[in-house]
Order: sequence, then structure tokens, then C-alpha cells
Amino acid sequence: MKHHVNFTPGPSQLYFTVADHAREAFRSGIPSLSHRSKTFEDISRETTAGLRELLNIPAGYEMYFTSSATEIWERIIQNLVEEKSTHFVNGSFSKRFYEIAQQLNRRPEKIEAKEGDGFSIVEKFDASELIALTHNETSTGVSLPVDFIHAFKEKNPQALIAVDAVSSLPYPAFDFTKLDSVFFSVQKGFGLPAGLGVWIVNEKCITKAESLLSKGISVGSYHNIPTLRANAVKNQTPETPNVLAIYLLNQVVKDFLRRGAETIRRETEYKAAILYQALQQHALYNSMR
Amino acid sequence: MKHHVNFTPGPSQLYFTVADHAREAFRSGIPSLSHRSKTFEDISRETTAGLRELLNIPAGYEMYFTSSATEIWERIIQNLVEEKSTHFVNGSFSKRFYEIAQQLNRRPEKIEAKEGDGFSIVEKFDASELIALTHNETSTGVSLPVDFIHAFKEKNPQALIAVDAVSSLPYPAFDFTKLDSVFFSVQKGFGLPAGLGVWIVNEKCITKAESLLSKGISVGSYHNIPTLRANAVKNQTPETPNVLAIYLLNQVVKDFLRRGAETIRRETEYKAAILYQALQQHALYNSMR
Repeated sequence: MKHHVNFTPGPSQLYFTVADHAREAFRSGIPSLSHRSKTFEDISRETTAGLRELLNIPAGYEMYFTSSATEIWERIIQNLVEEKSTHFVNGSFSKRFYEIAQQLNRRPEKIEAKEGDGFSIVEKFDASELIALTHNETSTGVSLPVDFIHAFKEKNPQALIAVDAVSSLPYPAFDFTKLDSVFFSVQKGFGLPAGLGVWIVNEKCITKAESLLSKGISVGSYHNIPTLRANAVKNQTPETPNVLAIYLLNQVVKDFLRRGAETIRRETEYKAAILYQALQQHALYNSMR
Repeated sequence: MKHHVNFTPGPSQLYFTVADHAREAFRSGIPSLSHRSKTFEDISRETTAGLRELLNIPAGYEMYFTSSATEIWERIIQNLVEEKSTHFVNGSFSKRFYEIAQQLNRRPEKIEAKEGDGFSIVEKFDASELIALTHNETSTGVSLPVDFIHAFKEKNPQALIAVDAVSSLPYPAFDFTKLDSVFFSVQKGFGLPAGLGVWIVNEKCITKAESLLSKGISVGSYHNIPTLRANAVKNQTPETPNVLAIYLLNQVVKDFLRRGAETIRRETEYKAAILYQALQQHALYNSMR
């Protein structure tokens, strides 16, 4: 099969070190490793410690492995919203997060921008338990400025701020103290095979899930926050996870740390500049202006 | 790392062809393949067609890809049970299925055998919507005879019969007409890396999920049956799935089909005989008798 360079909103090209890491994984028996073994716990611990360093995640924030960011949309609504969430919708991915809240019988509201647009007004949403913002709306490529996202917490101290950073991390330098939950999947900015999502939550999220549970509201089962964290403290997962993907994420995070987060950011900006220039010089782009 | 042969209830040894298939996958760009591409649809179609042939699944049964069998426990309760399910519990896995029903605020009942035992009486459960049987209780190694499992349908025509075949397929020769839902994950009998579950359902399951939905009961979101099947008819998945795992499953199913289901069954019985004999000759086994 010919190798194509793709710009689809689906999986990215693999990061250039991944195929070698995968070969090493198969050589050393990673795919049949027990997820209750010491070796797995070490891999899991290294991965979350590496991500903590790379993304500058402070103490008091935990990290859980899920199967996808799509799953995390569902887990956020189940665990962190009793009745009402507010969704900034400007494309098909942010829209799906809103629809998932409806499917779980909550009463979400949406603030809509037309496709290709972003948002600029930081409003107050007094009745909202959670405000959902998409840093980079994958379907349209529209990014919200990080400062705009950071501004919601001060105006909405009662709400949890949840940020979909699926197609942007590790690029954005978030100030986690202004956010309660951030999540991504590994097949975009980390250049890994699909099949793993990472869900970052703070203590306010944990408290919220526990409070829903104490009211008799179902917060899901094997992937509810109390179960995820009971396993995460042991560097384990509730179910048999995608062990190979966690191993590969660990290796790529180490590669990224060797280069440094700032180098990766400058490289991303440089690649974007090349791409923007190529597009601006293209006949099709100029014919549409 | 030294290669160990393990007998844990976790992931099995990889099937001997898997490492080569994985190398080919990386060579041909499978891990960055879009899950909305024609190539992915072809892989997905081949995989389900292969499984249909290998497991002798009749028309009227659909197959959905999930992240694990643990997830399928949750999806079965969400989609197929309004109030009451009946669980045959004889170990930690069948027990977790029962507990998941509780966590989702249903009122399940359990028929318990002590660890190491199986069941023999085919009862009637008039008030039950779903009867959950574990073909091979991974935590104890106790298998229920296939004929015993098949006998429930006739006595309980109102209930859906759901069979956990996680650590036994492709060995058991099920008569699917006596079962409504069967599920497994790929890291046991298929010898593949963990991170993929396969959920088989018939039309009665689909109708049940639709009926819960029409009553306003949440059946989950991206992995509810209506959403799974809307994607499955296009050989797609609602979310970006573990594409690499689906590709590898397809290759191993092809390998299995070349050998034939009967050959695999005889080989499994032969391997079990070697193992039983070794155990019976072991001093520890004899000291415990």
C-alpha cells in the first residue's frame, strides 16, 4: 500500500518513532502482558507521570485511560452532570457532545456558532453544572484561544469547565488551575494508533461524581469515576485495557519529553505556517475568496 | 524480556501469526487508516463475515465492535434490561456482570454456585427480561455445558439469553438460534492484543433496545444498539475504533478458517488433555486430593 499523507479529521499519520516502538513491544511480549502485573503498573505509572510533565498538569489532577474521547463525552455527562450542561457548539464534534447529554436524559443547552466560526463572549451560566468547550473543533479546524477558555472559570465558579482537546494536545499550554477536566485521544496530536483516550479530572470532578452516586443517580459502572480512581491509584484499570496503546503512548511521551514541549509547539507552528502558505498560494483557495 | 508461557485469566499468549500480521499492518499504514475510508469498511466487512463463518452465526444476527467485554456487560444492561435480569454467578466475572446491573439501577437477581462449581438445573424465571450465563467463568475455569446453556430458551421464551463467551470462543459450537446475544473479547481464545470486544445480537435484542428508547429510557449514547447498528450496516463504527485490532482480528479469523473450526476444537481439546495430565501428575495436585 502506498503511504499517503492525509489531512482528514480522522487518525493522523503515525509519529515517526511509533513503528519501531511497536516492533519492540511485540518482541518483548507487551501485547500479552497481564494488566494486573507489576510490569503493567510500571508502564501505566510512567505514562501518567510523563503526561503530567509534558502537559504541566498540577497535583490534585488524576488521569484515567478510556477507549476513546467519544467514550469520555459519555463518562463526563454520566459522572459530572445531574441536570444541565452548557455546550459551545461550532461543528460536528462539539455537537455530538451536546447530543450525548440529551441521549443520557439530561437537559443540556447549546450556544451555537455557525460552522467555521468560533466564540468570543465569556458569559455567565448560573444554572449550569458543566461548561463544555472544544479547544479545536476537529470538523472545521476552528481553534478557541486558550485565554478565552481560561476566562470561564472566574465567571462560572459553580460550574465544572470541561475541555475537549482531542485534536490539539500536546500543543496548547493550558493553565489547568482554570480547568476541571481535559481530555484527548491518542490518534491525533500524539500520532498513535487509535483505541485509547485520556481523561484528566480534578478533585471537584471526583466530588461531583461521588455526590451524584450518593443521591442514587447511576454514574455508569466499570468506568465511573470512583471505579476508575480506585484502579488508577494502583496504576491499574478496571477492565483489560488496550495495553499495547498505553505502552506506545508511554514511549511517544518520552520521545516528546526528550524534544521538549516548547520545541513541539514551535514545530507545530512551523508546520502550520508551511501548510497555510501552500493553501494561500493554491488556485482553488484564491478562487473562493 | 524473556517470553513466559502464562495461564493467568488475563490476556493469553499471542497467536503465533499475530506479530507478522502486526508488522504488515504498520508497513501498509493500517494504524493511521481513516475509519470512514473504503479500506476500513472492507476490513470491517471481511472481519464480520469471517466470524459469521467461523462461529456459524445465522442470518438475523448482527455484530458490533466495542472496546472490551467489560463494556459489553454495561451495554447489555443499558440496552436490553428495563428492570430485571437474572445472573448465574459462579466466580468473579459473572459476579461483576450482576454488579453492573445494580450500578445501572436495575434490580437484578443472582443464582449463586460456590466458586469452582457450575450449575445443572434449567429453571423458569418468569419475571426476568434477560438471563445471563457465563460459558467459561474465567476466574475459576468452570465451563457450563453448551447443551445446558441451550436449554434456557425453551423454558424462558420471554427472556433474552445472553452468553459471556469471553474466554472460550471460538471453541464452543453454539446453536445461535437458542441464544439472543453472545460476546467475547479478542485477547483470550483469539490470541490477540487486548482492546477489542465483539458483541453479537439478534433482532429481539434490537427490538428490545428500541422499545426501551421509545419509553424514554436512556440506552446510552454512541454505543447504544440503534447507533451501533446504523454504523454497522455501513461496516463502520460510531467512534474512531481500535482499527489495528480489527485488522488483526480479521487476519487471525482468516488463519483460523484456513485451519477450520473443527481442527481448532480438536487442538484445544488436545492441549487441555496435555495440561490436565501434567497437573494430575504434579505432587501439589495429588497432595490436595
